[in-house]
Amino acid sequence: MKKITVWGVDWAPPFAQGLVRDLRVRWALEEAGLAYESRWVGVEERHSDTYRRKHPFGLVPVLESDEGTMIESGAIVYAIAEHSEALMPADQRAKTLGWMFAALNTVEPPVWNLFVIDLLHPDEAWAKLRRPGAVDEVKARLAALSAWLDGRDYLQDCFTAADILMTTALRFIRHTDLVAEFPRIDAYVKRCEARPAFQTALRNQMADYARNVPVAA
Amino acid sequence: MKKITVWGVDWAPPFAQGLVRDLRVRWALEEAGLAYESRWVGVEERHSDTYRRKHPFGLVPVLESDEGTMIESGAIVYAIAEHSEALMPADQRAKTLGWMFAALNTVEPPVWNLFVIDLLHPDEAWAKLRRPGAVDEVKARLAALSAWLDGRDYLQDCFTAADILMTTALRFIRHTDLVAEFPRIDAYVKRCEARPAFQTALRNQMADYARNVPVAA
Ligand SMILES: N[C@@H](CCC(=O)N[C@@H](CS)C(=O)NCC(=O)O)C(=O)O
Ligand SMILES: N[C@@H](CCC(=O)N[C@@H](CS)C(=O)NCC(=O)O)C(=O)O
Repeated sequence: MKKITVWGVDWAPPFAQGLVRDLRVRWALEEAGLAYESRWVGVEERHSDTYRRKHPFGLVPVLESDEGTMIESGAIVYAIAEHSEALMPADQRAKTLGWMFAALNTVEPPVWNLFVIDLLHPDEAWAKLRRPGAVDEVKARLAALSAWLDGRDYLQDCFTAADILMTTALRFIRHTDLVAEFPRIDAYVKRCEARPAFQTALRNQMADYARNVPVAA
Repeated sequence: MKKITVWGVDWAPPFAQGLVRDLRVRWALEEAGLAYESRWVGVEERHSDTYRRKHPFGLVPVLESDEGTMIESGAIVYAIAEHSEALMPADQRAKTLGWMFAALNTVEPPVWNLFVIDLLHPDEAWAKLRRPGAVDEVKARLAALSAWLDGRDYLQDCFTAADILMTTALRFIRHTDLVAEFPRIDAYVKRCEARPAFQTALRNQMADYARNVPVAA
């Protein structure tokens, strides 16, 4: 993979900074030691024909490289991992993809629901009524994940691309104490976030927002 | 892939029949022409230690084969597709995985939300208040998907594993008229569901429920 460009948003409100999904792609690229450039798309621009030609749903991230244009953080991280034993041992591809989908299709949905309730609709009546049930759904997934992590440092025998997706999915509830209620998951997230590649990716993403602060903000 | 066993639930209430996610795996296996056996897990059994050793979150589907135990419908369908040009042309793997994640991580979340509101919490106050916003979120995704399908029969140049995931994700709102409001998506879903492999998979899944009707039901 050569001549890599990662598309993120040009700015995000503070509650979303460090959560936008191009962080996953940056993190994977840092782990794999692949150089990349950053490009940013603005809110309205996202729905332009030009941008929709890159991403049919007008979302970020998009990755462009000599291999073509890719959408979906999960698929992009998998493609990067195919180029890097550090992200996915060759004999662990199927298992890793299983955990990648578990992160984005089993753990992220309830976690994202709670993010939507608390941070996108904090003052709405439905959100207040729904919250206790949404918390229970998060806890059910966290309890299962915690049991799995008993005796394990990572989802698999070593750090993989799946840990990037699981950690970033769990970050959507960083505003709650839910992860802290499960010490094994708490230690796991901290272990993953302590990696130099994560720190660099986060720093770069935040630096982009600082560069792009909207005039009105 | 040999000696394949697919795990589903032993019974589902009528509103969920034909929606349980082992349908995706059965459909992919039928398209690929791979023989398989069915096994069913009961509601309580799902949380047993024995079953959790197969699936850490106690969910279905699980696929067992000579290649090991796999979880997550997305990952299982991808693994099957790697064995079948009919599900994923060798030069289209990255693109197909992009559309698979788009189905499960961009389209399914709002669609599933509406399923949860209408069918799991039909009488709750929060669900009534939340519904209009949830419908708008579904429509935003369907509008983008409809634009993409302009001039296309499938998500990519030919039918792939991604169409299995997209079609089955869209089936979660079969109780609404939302898909019908987008004639291109409506035709697309009908085109996919008309495939003999889908019909066989659905028939087999339904036959399993008929065999397993709970004594009390
Ligand atoms: N499943 C997609 C989701 C992408 C997504 O939701 N991206 C957000 C940022 S994290 C976005 O672009 N939001 C802008 C919008 O909704 O208009 C992925 O993982 O790539
Ligand atoms: N992301 C998972 C989701 C699996 C899932 O939610 N399965 C449902 C049936 S469709 C289930 O097992 N539900 C039982 C439960 O929640 O206890 C996948 O696609 O395999």
